[in-house]
Amino acid sequence: MTRKKLIEQIRQKQSFLCIGLDPDIRKIPEHLLDQEDPLLAFNREIIAATEDLCVAYKPNLAFYECHGVAGWKTLGKTMNRIGENHFTIADAKRGDIGNTSRYYAKTFFEQYPFDSLTVAPYMGIDSVSPFLEFENKWVILLALTSNPGASDFQTEKLKSGEAVFEKVLKTSTRWGNADNLMYVVGATKANLLQKVRAIVPDSFLLVPGIGAQGGSLTEVVEYGLNKDCGLLVNSSRGIIYASNGRDFAEKARESAEKIQKEMARLLSAKNWL
Amino acid sequence: MTRKKLIEQIRQKQSFLCIGLDPDIRKIPEHLLDQEDPLLAFNREIIAATEDLCVAYKPNLAFYECHGVAGWKTLGKTMNRIGENHFTIADAKRGDIGNTSRYYAKTFFEQYPFDSLTVAPYMGIDSVSPFLEFENKWVILLALTSNPGASDFQTEKLKSGEAVFEKVLKTSTRWGNADNLMYVVGATKANLLQKVRAIVPDSFLLVPGIGAQGGSLTEVVEYGLNKDCGLLVNSSRGIIYASNGRDFAEKARESAEKIQKEMARLLSAKNWL
Repeated sequence: MTRKKLIEQIRQKQSFLCIGLDPDIRKIPEHLLDQEDPLLAFNREIIAATEDLCVAYKPNLAFYECHGVAGWKTLGKTMNRIGENHFTIADAKRGDIGNTSRYYAKTFFEQYPFDSLTVAPYMGIDSVSPFLEFENKWVILLALTSNPGASDFQTEKLKSGEAVFEKVLKTSTRWGNADNLMYVVGATKANLLQKVRAIVPDSFLLVPGIGAQGGSLTEVVEYGLNKDCGLLVNSSRGIIYASNGRDFAEKARESAEKIQKEMARLLSAKNWL
Repeated sequence: MTRKKLIEQIRQKQSFLCIGLDPDIRKIPEHLLDQEDPLLAFNREIIAATEDLCVAYKPNLAFYECHGVAGWKTLGKTMNRIGENHFTIADAKRGDIGNTSRYYAKTFFEQYPFDSLTVAPYMGIDSVSPFLEFENKWVILLALTSNPGASDFQTEKLKSGEAVFEKVLKTSTRWGNADNLMYVVGATKANLLQKVRAIVPDSFLLVPGIGAQGGSLTEVVEYGLNKDCGLLVNSSRGIIYASNGRDFAEKARESAEKIQKEMARLLSAKNWL
């Protein structure tokens, strides 16, 4: 998907919501367990209930891989269901030497036609650049994550005075641009969003950590919004597990709609719409 | 596999060789292409030709994932063929928030019964520790890789004076120990092995970069050997693609044997055997 189409989707839906499709066999409603593929049945109902409210879907690969071959089949069928009007993110956090990253690119941009892939930056340029060679495909580079371990290395200060995540942002601007590179920036650190925006003013940010992880949507918009919106805010558990009863899809829609309405209000307040 | 058993294997085979099983459909011998599963046929012949010469096999997941469901089937059958007397490494470079890393652990320690998994450190403690809860299973943490991009972040100096990779090593010693944690340390940087050994004297190191990437086995042993050997040196392309003709398995054996003999000579010279 192009940046232009993504922005159009955001404008049209008045939403920059991304929904994490992380189906957990121990958490999905019991009545789905006798289906041939319970995780696919779950995903399909979640998608049908939310597709007009969100602009992106983000399956985290861990939830599919753990079922082996069957899980990859579920992923393929989920992708088929999503279609072409949502930005799709393979939350796979891959990254390897150049020679090998090329194969991961084939997996997630060709075998499964995702628009984008999350990539870990630790191995540097040649682990990232092979993904940037695909037209209208995106790398979403981990910069500042929302988990506790983010403070182990990402926020460590370098001799130059900048934090490791700032070095990652700066260095990566030499590898790609706002048309093929986005960044994961945790919403639990909204004060750091200002620092991020100072380095990558034009890029889209994928912001996890709203809801279950405690981030504030108002702060994210305050410090993260740019002329293209520039934000995809993800919620997974707060939406897909809003209920574990027969009303799960309906409750997922209610949760997603609550966030979408708040997004519309904030975009409008910022005169973005 | 326990550390004790791994050391016994090394002593018995006079080898600390790990062979990377990275089958590439464009590089394997043509005569295999009419087999039902060419990559599996290739792996089986490579394993049969080398299993007495190496102590570990390391499939890099990128080479399987890029074939979708079929690739995961090939991986499973390859694992079945390897059996229990080789240390198996899922070179997957995974790492996610704790909740999610648990699912990756399920994939690589239960769904596919690998002994170990390579993990990227960028997300910190909660991305690594879920893998350390499995008995006799191992995390192999990326510390200092052998690719060009390693200099982008890994060797950057922190305010404290230590490099990022040294911080990763030091911090991780609080998460695990020499019985469940190894490190990837690139052989193209043998001078840095001394620094690594100063921080993790007892740990096993997985050393890529011998052969195609230019590292020296003598230097690796000089600076990396410890009382348990403490080394697994990987070669992939130099062995598995030694020939692309009908003699590929024979030539792979010759290449592996050359390395094994050099290893035996070095271990003997160091009075380790």
